Amino acid sequence: MKKASIVSIGNELLNGQTVNTNTTYLSSGLLSSGIPVVSSYIISDDVDAIIRVFDLAVADADIVLVTGGLGPTDDDLTRQAFAGYLGTELQLQADLLGRLENFFTRRSLRMPDKNKIQAYIPAGAKPIENSLGTAPGIMAEVKGKLIFALPGVPSEMKRMFAESVLPELQRFTGGQALVVRKLRCFGAGESTIAELLGAACQRGRNPLVNCTVESGIITLHIIASSKEKNAARQMAEKEEKQIRNILGELVYGTAEQSLAQVVGEKLTRKEKTLAVAESCTGGIVAKLLTDIPGASKYFTHGWITYSNAAKTAELGVAADLIEKYGAVSEPVAQAMACCARKKARSDFAIGITGIAGPDGGTEQKPVGLVYISVDSDNCCDTKRCLFSHDRQSIRIRAAQTALNMLRLKLNI
Amino acid sequence: MKKASIVSIGNELLNGQTVNTNTTYLSSGLLSSGIPVVSSYIISDDVDAIIRVFDLAVADADIVLVTGGLGPTDDDLTRQAFAGYLGTELQLQADLLGRLENFFTRRSLRMPDKNKIQAYIPAGAKPIENSLGTAPGIMAEVKGKLIFALPGVPSEMKRMFAESVLPELQRFTGGQALVVRKLRCFGAGESTIAELLGAACQRGRNPLVNCTVESGIITLHIIASSKEKNAARQMAEKEEKQIRNILGELVYGTAEQSLAQVVGEKLTRKEKTLAVAESCTGGIVAKLLTDIPGASKYFTHGWITYSNAAKTAELGVAADLIEKYGAVSEPVAQAMACCARKKARSDFAIGITGIAGPDGGTEQKPVGLVYISVDSDNCCDTKRCLFSHDRQSIRIRAAQTALNMLRLKLNI
Repeated sequence: MKKASIVSIGNELLNGQTVNTNTTYLSSGLLSSGIPVVSSYIISDDVDAIIRVFDLAVADADIVLVTGGLGPTDDDLTRQAFAGYLGTELQLQADLLGRLENFFTRRSLRMPDKNKIQAYIPAGAKPIENSLGTAPGIMAEVKGKLIFALPGVPSEMKRMFAESVLPELQRFTGGQALVVRKLRCFGAGESTIAELLGAACQRGRNPLVNCTVESGIITLHIIASSKEKNAARQMAEKEEKQIRNILGELVYGTAEQSLAQVVGEKLTRKEKTLAVAESCTGGIVAKLLTDIPGASKYFTHGWITYSNAAKTAELGVAADLIEKYGAVSEPVAQAMACCARKKARSDFAIGITGIAGPDGGTEQKPVGLVYISVDSDNCCDTKRCLFSHDRQSIRIRAAQTALNMLRLKLNI
Repeated sequence: MKKASIVSIGNELLNGQTVNTNTTYLSSGLLSSGIPVVSSYIISDDVDAIIRVFDLAVADADIVLVTGGLGPTDDDLTRQAFAGYLGTELQLQADLLGRLENFFTRRSLRMPDKNKIQAYIPAGAKPIENSLGTAPGIMAEVKGKLIFALPGVPSEMKRMFAESVLPELQRFTGGQALVVRKLRCFGAGESTIAELLGAACQRGRNPLVNCTVESGIITLHIIASSKEKNAARQMAEKEEKQIRNILGELVYGTAEQSLAQVVGEKLTRKEKTLAVAESCTGGIVAKLLTDIPGASKYFTHGWITYSNAAKTAELGVAADLIEKYGAVSEPVAQAMACCARKKARSDFAIGITGIAGPDGGTEQKPVGLVYISVDSDNCCDTKRCLFSHDRQSIRIRAAQTALNMLRLKLNI
């Protein structure tokens, strides 16, 4: 089985300014391709230190993925270190220079002189195209091992990994079998899900079931390994079926699917439309919905009625309702959803009102209290939630809960 | 100047399940104490691999901080590896065993047999108290270098670092002083800013100026070191003044300030209000504004007019304007801002319309084209932008650019 090592380069990773999410992304992507990562190094922008770590990583593994240090500034030194490691010199590549100049010309910008260095790569190495930014990647095969240097900017790195690195790796690793399936769940905590799954979550099992949590979304990674790809796939599929049986509607999707994406697909399939009226979430539901390309098919209207006056003037929520029950109340959440649906003439509408904190809470209505309504032509469902943690967690949890309520409604 | 290296242990860090936030936390804490981190290693739960990395880290630095692998299960092997590195054996510490038993008794629990291993530490090392969990830390001084092993659970690690490690480090490093100041900039790329700053960004200088980028926001880290805290502070302040002189209005704030926060402070100070009308950003401007507690003081109304019908019905943008120029055009962005300001009766309003992609672009109006208007009682400014990268980058850059336009307008 081929193994990989990851090298991250950049002072910002060593002075606590930047969380190294690239390594997490690459580790996960490599494992999904059947390549376990055995070590990971972070090193500062220093040519000698980088060369030394190249040595270590190449000793550890068959594949080395390097990120960072390909920018145009003086402290971007991966290019020079890569040449140093190979024992060669940097060479200007005319076609890379042309592409760089083009990048700036198309944007009607003058190319800063500093960027010219990005057209150089070590002799004997190959450039990797960057379809998003100016820094090309670099790849070289040395003594039967593959080394890739990718930009540190996450969007550029991810695109280059998917478009250029993965195909090279598939060629390089041949017929090794590891199948990873991901199930995404919402509506119960990690420990509840672990309890429901019982033995399936035990370590050392094959398939192995790993559990990660983010913003209330629980991702189950089912990792099956076998000598044969087909056998591994069957094991993973069988495990997935069992888990789906146990968890039922808690499972909302697979792989990287977001709740907004699943909701969008259901709305598209049923040819239904959606409007949202948000108070405490202040646009997060709309943002999550419009993260998905093509959301305009089903999402047409959003209101952020942050003030009481806006709730009344823009949505038509009765002022005496707000006066009587308070802006954070079940009747106001219902009215927001109901009015939004009428104004937008949509099939569904979400209304959210709550107290995101840190201030503004009382004993009766504490910080974290959120009312969420989903209105449709036959009924308006409302949920009273009490979320914990900080302002951001309360807001994102409220937004996700609203989308999940709509998802369950769309299942009927 | 004493230097540190960080070693993180655990398979979960190498298979993409867990983002390594411990390293970020420790790096930042060490740097604030005047100890730069020069390298960081992640290694799996394997005794030989851990010992090998101990060697590397001790060669790199004067202080080595190890996290993870101190739990009670069979794959927690840091204790054994630490003993192996020191060339000694694990020894049972009676007082640690007593404390462990106490931990469980106080919670009316039986201590699982597996936990007993946590009362063992290498001969010649010292235990570090864990006031939150069961895993004591371990510390040893070897050939004038300090090695600390801390639990991997972030809350326990952080508490132990603050309570026990920092005092030891202060004793160890003597009177070294390092002052870090951060400036945040928006409106120019990394290479342009580096060119403007010229020599200030050179490596090896003191103060050192480091540059990091996220969502178009550039953070300059000014790091000044000196034997005296006061001297370091003066050096950092002088450098900050020079940089501010050079960059002018490109600098929008300090430390962790977001653009939305700075805009919110300016609006509050001037007692002005703001409304937003978003199309392609789909709620991101509103989300950024309402991320800030107390935003209700100045932000009252938001519209997400994702469809043309919504632009007309909710904002009152003339339908023939949309027909004539298209929804993505300067006149429509202006009308959105202008109508939003009138409807919300606010002092300022932002209007955004564009093509976030990946589909929907044409030769005349490519993906990434965004018109942003900021309307006030005396004028309406509009910017035509062409953003690159993917849908998410285009959306977030457009939202930040809108906030930056408003910031500059509020400076007048």
